[in-house]
Amino acid sequence: MTIPTFSDVLVAHDRIKPFIHRTPVLTSSFINELCGAELFFKCENFQKAGAFKARGAVNAVFGLNEDQASLGVATHSSGNHGSCLSYAAGRRGIPCTVVMPHTAPQAKKDAVRGYGARIVECEPSTSSREAVFAEVVSKSGAEFVHPYADPRVIAGQATCSKELVEQVEGIEVVIAPIGGGGMVSGSCLTLSNLAPDIQIYAAEPEQADDACRSFKAGHIIADDAPQTIADGLKVPLTDITWNFVKNHVADILTASDNEIIDAMKLTWRRMKIVIEPSSAVSLATIFKNKQVFAGRRVGVILTGGNVDIEKLPWL
Amino acid sequence: MTIPTFSDVLVAHDRIKPFIHRTPVLTSSFINELCGAELFFKCENFQKAGAFKARGAVNAVFGLNEDQASLGVATHSSGNHGSCLSYAAGRRGIPCTVVMPHTAPQAKKDAVRGYGARIVECEPSTSSREAVFAEVVSKSGAEFVHPYADPRVIAGQATCSKELVEQVEGIEVVIAPIGGGGMVSGSCLTLSNLAPDIQIYAAEPEQADDACRSFKAGHIIADDAPQTIADGLKVPLTDITWNFVKNHVADILTASDNEIIDAMKLTWRRMKIVIEPSSAVSLATIFKNKQVFAGRRVGVILTGGNVDIEKLPWL
Repeated sequence: MTIPTFSDVLVAHDRIKPFIHRTPVLTSSFINELCGAELFFKCENFQKAGAFKARGAVNAVFGLNEDQASLGVATHSSGNHGSCLSYAAGRRGIPCTVVMPHTAPQAKKDAVRGYGARIVECEPSTSSREAVFAEVVSKSGAEFVHPYADPRVIAGQATCSKELVEQVEGIEVVIAPIGGGGMVSGSCLTLSNLAPDIQIYAAEPEQADDACRSFKAGHIIADDAPQTIADGLKVPLTDITWNFVKNHVADILTASDNEIIDAMKLTWRRMKIVIEPSSAVSLATIFKNKQVFAGRRVGVILTGGNVDIEKLPWL
Repeated sequence: MTIPTFSDVLVAHDRIKPFIHRTPVLTSSFINELCGAELFFKCENFQKAGAFKARGAVNAVFGLNEDQASLGVATHSSGNHGSCLSYAAGRRGIPCTVVMPHTAPQAKKDAVRGYGARIVECEPSTSSREAVFAEVVSKSGAEFVHPYADPRVIAGQATCSKELVEQVEGIEVVIAPIGGGGMVSGSCLTLSNLAPDIQIYAAEPEQADDACRSFKAGHIIADDAPQTIADGLKVPLTDITWNFVKNHVADILTASDNEIIDAMKLTWRRMKIVIEPSSAVSLATIFKNKQVFAGRRVGVILTGGNVDIEKLPWL
């Protein structure tokens, strides 16, 4: 297991800058009053391809040497990592293959193809996905870029918290949603080096609270196919992300799907921004744990904005 | 008729700065490619109370002397001006009364009351509104702040284009939606003084194209109760706004309601921001008139983000 270092983060930030947005930080006095804290929303929903995962994907793709790059990259993902890796490969002009179940939403398939990548469909089971993916890699020689269990990806995601503390003075707490733990690990990596006094919280759906239970148990617990509206957060921790979580996270807070939807609607209504359900989990947990955040300056990482506006969870 | 001057704009900007957002300018490389121009979106959907009208309302309210202010302000509006005037009065701590038909959407009433203003309901007819409003003013002595036919309001709206040209270098064209003409007049006022080479276009719904027909005819034509999804743009020009439009606007372009909805959806999907239908009219007309904007740097004023997310026009 290779653990990325803070110097990897600095290299990553220089490498990815031409291809990503330095996303803005927005505030809402209305939401601040509601929760009794000062929240600074880092808007990765405005990021390239609509999610923070463009950072890690671009870092992995542009860090390849020419020989590796010419063979392309591949991943399995029916979520934001698939489209973000496709975006990154498109910018470098190299092949990209994404393995996803044939049951994946059409919008996700369109996004991947829109960036010029190839989709190889599998059955919606782990065994099929692994078999199909292995064949893709062995035939093409493509470099596997895992959605989060990859030091290049974590170093890329880590640039988000770096920008946040450059953009806002006096941040005391950072909170981000946790699924596989890529964004949280990146935040731990940056903040433990750059601003070790900042507390790091993770936010998780109650219905996929494996990271919270892992945190309490002291070892990784993986759920089998959890169901939650926050569909980016169903995946389990791995050794590399668990290493960051157990050493640097202050606590993992949870919220129900209804609370997540309420926080999502409030954000749309008051901040006038489109965020996906996974992005709303942090705010939902802040409302449930006001005493933790009261009076503090809190960085809230909004992870993405890829939602089907024809099928909103409250309709 | 008092025409505001550019020095009124400078005074207004200093006056309102503590109470409004200097809203960000966003871009979308995807939308740029689609239309073949460089668009710079001035995000007044992020403005206080969710609309540019906070600028004019705050300027009017904070420009009152103490005696006038103590009697409060009043307006008739079932749209953004009502909630923005309520916001401004709330910030100064003076009374505000908004006359609106009892048929107005609950969300609009809630917004006005949320800022602490009083609503007086009338029947949904011009005669009832005028009678009820006259009684409110005569009883309270409140200062009438018209939604757009008011030099203080126009000077306030004019600060939006001033910020835009401060934020983005080399703007060649500015386009904004036109209803009563407050935002377009403000843009004319600022740009004709500050950057007279910038062309100003207005964008209007086909189904409420009275300003377009006025522009072609050379005199004001007012429609009787037009129907369009862009509900902020149903009102007619008045002498003061017509004066700016006829002297400074290059052309008035129109788009159908379906084209407006398509542009609105594209903006939500690609830019991840919530805009109301009236805000999408400019982009809809840009797509219909690509030759006008091709290769140019275009400031696009997104006027507001107040939309009922439970009742979206495409659902």
